[in-house]
Amino acid sequence: MVDTLELSLRGFLVRGLPSICEGDQLATMIEERADLQDGDVLCIASTVVAKAEGRQRSLKSYEPSGLAMKLAGPLNKDPRFVQAVLEESKEVLLTHPFLLVVTNFGHTCVNAGIDRSNVPGDEQILLLPRDPSASARQIRNVLSRDCAVIVTDTCGRPFRCGVAGAALGCAGIAPIRDWRGQEDLQGRTLEITLEAVADELAGIANLLMGEADGGTPVAILRGLSYPREGGDLFWPDEKDMIRRHLRPASARPPV
Amino acid sequence: MVDTLELSLRGFLVRGLPSICEGDQLATMIEERADLQDGDVLCIASTVVAKAEGRQRSLKSYEPSGLAMKLAGPLNKDPRFVQAVLEESKEVLLTHPFLLVVTNFGHTCVNAGIDRSNVPGDEQILLLPRDPSASARQIRNVLSRDCAVIVTDTCGRPFRCGVAGAALGCAGIAPIRDWRGQEDLQGRTLEITLEAVADELAGIANLLMGEADGGTPVAILRGLSYPREGGDLFWPDEKDMIRRHLRPASARPPV
Repeated sequence: MVDTLELSLRGFLVRGLPSICEGDQLATMIEERADLQDGDVLCIASTVVAKAEGRQRSLKSYEPSGLAMKLAGPLNKDPRFVQAVLEESKEVLLTHPFLLVVTNFGHTCVNAGIDRSNVPGDEQILLLPRDPSASARQIRNVLSRDCAVIVTDTCGRPFRCGVAGAALGCAGIAPIRDWRGQEDLQGRTLEITLEAVADELAGIANLLMGEADGGTPVAILRGLSYPREGGDLFWPDEKDMIRRHLRPASARPPV
Repeated sequence: MVDTLELSLRGFLVRGLPSICEGDQLATMIEERADLQDGDVLCIASTVVAKAEGRQRSLKSYEPSGLAMKLAGPLNKDPRFVQAVLEESKEVLLTHPFLLVVTNFGHTCVNAGIDRSNVPGDEQILLLPRDPSASARQIRNVLSRDCAVIVTDTCGRPFRCGVAGAALGCAGIAPIRDWRGQEDLQGRTLEITLEAVADELAGIANLLMGEADGGTPVAILRGLSYPREGGDLFWPDEKDMIRRHLRPASARPPV
């Protein structure tokens, strides 16, 4: 006896977006091309959000500090690029063999997520949006529908191979679904209680974005239920045991 | 002008599975309830795979070692539970405030993924499958359709709040999609080249599994293209910079 429940999950790619320039109204450009519905989850690659926000920079505009000069050599990187990474970061966790930092908005990643692909010119770089959740809110507020917005990026992960889609910021959806107080099939309270739904959605959105030729920076997920409020994307400093252990012992705050 | 591409992505939950016992043929039980098609990605929670493989244990069967006794106190855990974690692990990375280990099959997680929920009896625990990719292959080989199989679990992640679905093992699908040699829109070779597709699929599967009451341990994803071969799920020791830094300096292999 077949007994499957077909979920109403559907996925769409928004096509025909032109190359994004500073000042472009992404929300409007997307709505012109997509028939958004209330409850849709609109996933937008951070690259296009950053371009619309004018986060493209020339390496020529950076004056490398002594620290940037010192780090750049072993990394085999342009010192001006390293300077850009340092300016976007509030903490450096690893300096070799790659530059692992905590960005000013709290995201731990390599090179502060600064991208040299998908921008024209060898001297051009693209920073991440300054505050991706603020970007998501700003886009969401312009939409005529009640949609969730997730600004996505692809990130490497400790312990596991490859990169996966992750949420850098979101609005109209909670980063976390809180299962606390729910019971398992034996009536015991669930041990795993905080599910990173925005990341799970960013992951499948990233996979879908790669499905079309050349990549598509906007994907729509429809038919899912999701929490509207609660939780954070990034561990605060005092709860992040891995970050703690990447620091020299002398720089670790007490547990 | 609306110009969205509707992807053929569909999601199903397999319903009506009984409580799984040692020796159950999961593949057959799933096919009896689901109309699988070639190309489907069958995502199965590691808990039911482990139960079918008889990975339930009583704490009574563990004799805590001196190390287990020493670690258990500050962790506020039963020393027999800590002993079980140690026996399932090839390396301990953190001993406080939680026990972060590398399992014998290479997965880095807390408590070796040993579960005390969803098993009856206070003295009962459920280990992870011994070799989840072997489990996936075994299930896949019994299926009458050419499906990919992913054994999923929910895992905490460094730097980010909450847990998310991840692949512990897979068969008929590559862990990684290799974009190397592809060019971006400016004709430059892509910098991000290894996409952890099995994890991205496990993430959305985990989200879908939670959509029905009480949780459903088997989800089917249909309509996706995916690579069949290539890549690994877990970083080998020498490439894992975070794992390296969690060790005392004296125990770090040279880069």
